[in-house]
Amino acid sequence: MIHPTALVSSSAKIDEGVEIGPYCIIHEHVWIKKNTKVGAYCEMGLTTPLAHEKQLEIGENSVIRSHSVIYAGSKIGAGLQTGHHVCVREKSDIAEGVQLGSRTDIQGDCSIGRHTKLHADVHIGKQSKIGSFVWLFPEVLLTNDPMPPSETLIGPVIEDYCVVASKVLVFPGVIIGNNAVIGAGSVVKSDIPEWKLATGNPAKPACDVRILRLPDNPKQKAYPWRNRFHRGYPKEIVQAWTEQAQATGKSK
Amino acid sequence: MIHPTALVSSSAKIDEGVEIGPYCIIHEHVWIKKNTKVGAYCEMGLTTPLAHEKQLEIGENSVIRSHSVIYAGSKIGAGLQTGHHVCVREKSDIAEGVQLGSRTDIQGDCSIGRHTKLHADVHIGKQSKIGSFVWLFPEVLLTNDPMPPSETLIGPVIEDYCVVASKVLVFPGVIIGNNAVIGAGSVVKSDIPEWKLATGNPAKPACDVRILRLPDNPKQKAYPWRNRFHRGYPKEIVQAWTEQAQATGKSK
Amino acid sequence: MIHPTALVSSSAKIDEGVEIGPYCIIHEHVWIKKNTKVGAYCEMGLTTPLAHEKQLEIGENSVIRSHSVIYAGSKIGAGLQTGHHVCVREKSDIAEGVQLGSRTDIQGDCSIGRHTKLHADVHIGKQSKIGSFVWLFPEVLLTNDPMPPSETLIGPVIEDYCVVASKVLVFPGVIIGNNAVIGAGSVVKSDIPEWKLATGNPAKPACDVRILRLPDNPKQKAYPWRNRFHRGYPKEIVQAWTEQAQATGKSK
Repeated sequence: MIHPTALVSSSAKIDEGVEIGPYCIIHEHVWIKKNTKVGAYCEMGLTTPLAHEKQLEIGENSVIRSHSVIYAGSKIGAGLQTGHHVCVREKSDIAEGVQLGSRTDIQGDCSIGRHTKLHADVHIGKQSKIGSFVWLFPEVLLTNDPMPPSETLIGPVIEDYCVVASKVLVFPGVIIGNNAVIGAGSVVKSDIPEWKLATGNPAKPACDVRILRLPDNPKQKAYPWRNRFHRGYPKEIVQAWTEQAQATGKSK
Repeated sequence: MIHPTALVSSSAKIDEGVEIGPYCIIHEHVWIKKNTKVGAYCEMGLTTPLAHEKQLEIGENSVIRSHSVIYAGSKIGAGLQTGHHVCVREKSDIAEGVQLGSRTDIQGDCSIGRHTKLHADVHIGKQSKIGSFVWLFPEVLLTNDPMPPSETLIGPVIEDYCVVASKVLVFPGVIIGNNAVIGAGSVVKSDIPEWKLATGNPAKPACDVRILRLPDNPKQKAYPWRNRFHRGYPKEIVQAWTEQAQATGKSK
Repeated sequence: MIHPTALVSSSAKIDEGVEIGPYCIIHEHVWIKKNTKVGAYCEMGLTTPLAHEKQLEIGENSVIRSHSVIYAGSKIGAGLQTGHHVCVREKSDIAEGVQLGSRTDIQGDCSIGRHTKLHADVHIGKQSKIGSFVWLFPEVLLTNDPMPPSETLIGPVIEDYCVVASKVLVFPGVIIGNNAVIGAGSVVKSDIPEWKLATGNPAKPACDVRILRLPDNPKQKAYPWRNRFHRGYPKEIVQAWTEQAQATGKSK
């Protein structure tokens, strides 16, 4: 399952069922867990002084697509899915079920919660904290330097279930509360409360997201999206969402 | 003309005069037509359940630059030119003479008309329809999800001869009429009529583009650009444009 | 120090101490100076009609990270540092100590002064002139076509010590004066005087940057940044800055 052209360090730990594609480079200090597939031209376990002798751990059943680069010193949960040409730097703490779209850049020293999905060309600066079940759409950029260049980086916090649409710019240290939705092209310069829709430059909280309806089905509330969008999530999570929605409905 | 380090499936159809660069991977279900050049580290014909056993067809006289990835299940016309690190997903219907700049991402399920030119870092969401002789400049982003995340994607429509300048964000389902010009950095939230210049956030139609003049040559009308800019287009197309311009001039 | 899988032209000039990573391609007309390290999957010295038989020269002690592409016909000073998936086209005149972040695209026919740092996903159009000790943060885009598409490109000028924050769009021909700071997400449509902070769309000069203080240390002036931020610069430069600051302080 390891392509004969792949260069795999004898110190790397490759579990059973792992596939390593053509022309890959797997350095030492890498542990790839079972049934994970690594596409062609990927380099994994690059070391820097920032992650001296620290391991890279890739969870089981992951798919890493071609031309991607993942440094040593990060722990990534099961079921990672990446696009092509992805970069993940050291000290990225990535939970299970995360998706990283093509050319997405995780600059390291950050955390991403479980089943969070980053689309293509997302840029996550150091010190960012991203919750679980978050959606970041193409070209979202999380910044971290309030007075550039400086030594004190303050990453944004994106809480659980947030949706941040395409080309949104998030300023250093901004907190986007859980279940908030940020409209495409917005510039988020200050905190956004939970459950709010915010749009514009600077982004200002408008309505509660729970009054929004789907344009092609106005009887269906759009948010919380977990009551209507289940593709790609594990059965047990979808079941919990469904039960929670029913309980909430009854209590009203 | 196939580099000895290239891994080419015996089921792939490689026409005469084709060059395949070092370390390329060409899967089965790929047909590369004559005189096309594929740069180093390209992977072509990746399959997914979305394009089961569908062929990738690359037209003759194309140039695919290094580190690019093109999936199975797309048909691409003659004379394709790509930059480096490009991604094209399945079910992309791409006519002849198209240019895709470096790191441009075609997400699939979309159409691009003939001689349309996408510059670097353009992102085309699924369900987009792009006409012929269109210009999309760096970091243009076509979105498709009106209430993210959702299952109903509605791509924008960019009609013939449009010019969309750098960093423009186009909202789902927006129609930009033929010969319209969108200023750099604009956010296009609603339809733009044909022949209009539109700028701002949200982009609003301003003047007719036909009153604009070239800054370095104020006697020369800037639009329609096909009356003054011919580099890279086939002779017979330029001749047709010239005759059309003369006929229009006489009829005035 | 040349990996056995690297394809290196016998006409390329590789100085002593140079490391060439796995699967690299080094064409003829390339001169890599001593102690430079080239990561995996890099292609260097690609030729086009725009740089016929012109050499690519990479200064000593440089680090080129994996999957990068550098064309023939550019001269790059000592101590270049690139991220991954970088592209540098022909006729790029790059001084010593420059950093180019991952996926940064230098379109050629441009100049970048010494110790200037470009972060990830920066896009430099042709005809741009970037001074020394400049900072360009992620997704900064320098455009060059005032009436697209056109043959007359007019690049922006970014003078010494400028700081241009994330996602800033700079219009063709704009001059940003030395020591100016452009806020994140701004669209710079007209010249910005030296020492000014400018923000917004369109970016307008606000205060003098020298009245700004560090948010985490209000006793410390934020600008000129060279009085407080020294990481990564050579000792002799930092010493000159320090002496200059002391002299300025005394003269007040």
